[in-house]
Amino acid sequence: MTASHTAEFDRMWADLEGVGRDPRGGYSRFAWTREDHTLREWFTGEAARRSMEVDIDRNGNLWAWWGTPGPGSFVTGSHLDSVPGGGAYDGPLGVITAFAAVDKLRADGITPQRAVAVACFGDEEGARFGLACVGSRLAAGLLDAKKAKALKDSDGIGVVEAMRSAGHDPAHLGRDDEVLSRIGVYVELHVEQGRNLVDQGHAIAIGSSIWPHGRWRFDFHGAGNHAGTTRLEDRRDPMLTYAETVLSARKRARLAGTVTTFGRVSVTPNGTNAIPSEVTAWLDSRGADEAEVLRVVDEIETRAHERGSRDDVTVSVTRESYTGKVEFDAGVQQRLRSVLGADTPVIGTGAGHDAGILSSVVPTGMLYVRNPTGISHDPAEFAERDDCHAGIDALAAVMTDYVTQAQS
Amino acid sequence: MTASHTAEFDRMWADLEGVGRDPRGGYSRFAWTREDHTLREWFTGEAARRSMEVDIDRNGNLWAWWGTPGPGSFVTGSHLDSVPGGGAYDGPLGVITAFAAVDKLRADGITPQRAVAVACFGDEEGARFGLACVGSRLAAGLLDAKKAKALKDSDGIGVVEAMRSAGHDPAHLGRDDEVLSRIGVYVELHVEQGRNLVDQGHAIAIGSSIWPHGRWRFDFHGAGNHAGTTRLEDRRDPMLTYAETVLSARKRARLAGTVTTFGRVSVTPNGTNAIPSEVTAWLDSRGADEAEVLRVVDEIETRAHERGSRDDVTVSVTRESYTGKVEFDAGVQQRLRSVLGADTPVIGTGAGHDAGILSSVVPTGMLYVRNPTGISHDPAEFAERDDCHAGIDALAAVMTDYVTQAQS
Repeated sequence: MTASHTAEFDRMWADLEGVGRDPRGGYSRFAWTREDHTLREWFTGEAARRSMEVDIDRNGNLWAWWGTPGPGSFVTGSHLDSVPGGGAYDGPLGVITAFAAVDKLRADGITPQRAVAVACFGDEEGARFGLACVGSRLAAGLLDAKKAKALKDSDGIGVVEAMRSAGHDPAHLGRDDEVLSRIGVYVELHVEQGRNLVDQGHAIAIGSSIWPHGRWRFDFHGAGNHAGTTRLEDRRDPMLTYAETVLSARKRARLAGTVTTFGRVSVTPNGTNAIPSEVTAWLDSRGADEAEVLRVVDEIETRAHERGSRDDVTVSVTRESYTGKVEFDAGVQQRLRSVLGADTPVIGTGAGHDAGILSSVVPTGMLYVRNPTGISHDPAEFAERDDCHAGIDALAAVMTDYVTQAQS
Repeated sequence: MTASHTAEFDRMWADLEGVGRDPRGGYSRFAWTREDHTLREWFTGEAARRSMEVDIDRNGNLWAWWGTPGPGSFVTGSHLDSVPGGGAYDGPLGVITAFAAVDKLRADGITPQRAVAVACFGDEEGARFGLACVGSRLAAGLLDAKKAKALKDSDGIGVVEAMRSAGHDPAHLGRDDEVLSRIGVYVELHVEQGRNLVDQGHAIAIGSSIWPHGRWRFDFHGAGNHAGTTRLEDRRDPMLTYAETVLSARKRARLAGTVTTFGRVSVTPNGTNAIPSEVTAWLDSRGADEAEVLRVVDEIETRAHERGSRDDVTVSVTRESYTGKVEFDAGVQQRLRSVLGADTPVIGTGAGHDAGILSSVVPTGMLYVRNPTGISHDPAEFAERDDCHAGIDALAAVMTDYVTQAQS
């Protein structure tokens, strides 16, 4: 059965290529939609193919078990949902590689001393309800069930309704100690979202940390009116205030050495011949230094208010999520290096992950697979197939190391 | 039957209040949708109630006839579609008033010497397919059938498919000489979209002209990427170029004494944690002076290219529509003044109308009803009921004047 795990990887990869794909080649796979349902069914099918039993936890995360679930389990996996028009790798690479690593251990005749689980966390990207990592945040107790239930998508559909229509009972959302108590270690493999590995000439890296990062919603409230008949001096046009805020966000980040992005905008009524009454936009702010990340947001908010008073537009800013700096468990990092070799690059990232959430409650580590362009959250996101296969080998080596030793 | 025409007006008004209304109180009634269908059925029902025969012309415009259709007819009416989240008056006021004016003439025992038609033009606002006045442009021969058929809505549905699914055969789109040959004069009544009448203390005005106006689509093409992991210096963020263009559009218009608006934006992929790959936005540019309107657009385009080269974003600009200055027929204006009184205000407008399109092929005039706030294309659009009733009287007086004299 030599190399059957790479053939299985390739087959699984091909299975998912058509799910939620748009004409531009991007993927839109949002939580609790038809596409999400297809992906969950695929996950369950892959588990069944391997005689792995599937648990769906209270928060809708999926767990495929090799062995009896219990304390000290080795857990790996990622997520299957995507940003709008995102790439094929962010998320699915970690899940597919996890199944392929299980295949490799079995092909190698390994008998695990502790259970292995392949996890698929729900709604990692937050594309539909605006908050990232909802599944892992709920499980870890970092998101209140009440707050989660208050989230709505752009059509006004709430999380509860969305879960119900997808067949998941939302009655027991919240911290899941049973699930957490089983995790001895969580190791997530992910495509790199940057070019560190290209620069260093390696296929695989170990994660050290995740930058502090958050999302802030800016509501610019003006007055709708006719685009042809309203004098400039009579206007209260929130698009102007928004535009100034976009430019100031870039400038403040540049001066502070952080990154900020306005990537999502919603305009009311969004008509060519109508001055908008309302513009809502989301600021993503990240950086190595927590104080700087927050100071930049404050500065942008101040500038938005200044410009708003000139435009007679009111501005309100709401922090929708914030995650402080994550340092992955030092013991896990050390163990990954001892398995993969001391020359394996160790890198930080500006991207959030379920691993970043779980690291606050269980020992957690990450592996990255080289991305030749560094592009992510775009159809151009890519990893060479050889590098993906190297990812299976790395994850399988780590899994072997953990499961062939009694729980440490 | 005294004042039954005002009671009929009030009833018709109430009939339409629920159609396509959103929770904010605005109306979204787009061409060839279910809401549009409901409005067309309402129109046909009102005609039947008055024993007026309804023609649907080749381009989907509706004509309710009092008398035998033929050359020299007096035509009035407007449209029933809306901008997204628009007001209740823009369009429907003209159609409802037209039916109420017919009621008044009949109550007054007038026997018309020429036919009267109440017209309802299709897709005046262009909210769905991006081009305004599609129905009247096609009929007047100012829009090529091929170009009309190439229009698509934001879901990629084309005009042909939309018409077919609404039960209209699009096989014969284009200039309709049969329809045009019947129109002796077209007089459209419309809510004012500005505050001229408030300032002058009159309920009704006569239209003199429509400003030159047009729509330009700006496509800002950058490179999608991860909002957290992409260094500022590696970004090609089209949102920055767009923001600068919005601010420059305002500045250029202010300096030139024209008006410009960016009211509609579409972002790809529109995710909080993704740098956009593409921003598309529509510029509305208008003003009293044609040369200035076009010069301002040129200046904005130049500034967009300048900023685009700094952001490594390509910009392309497409003129989607343009209508030069319209001067309503001098003879019609004179006749409206002689009927309504020499003290009736005569006003120009920055708003486009089917009357502006038809004025290039048939004698055309307009009447406006006072709007106390001047607000339009917004749920706050309003006219006092007494002023609406004064509109019926004015339109009925004009109709009486035209139909009681042999064709001039």
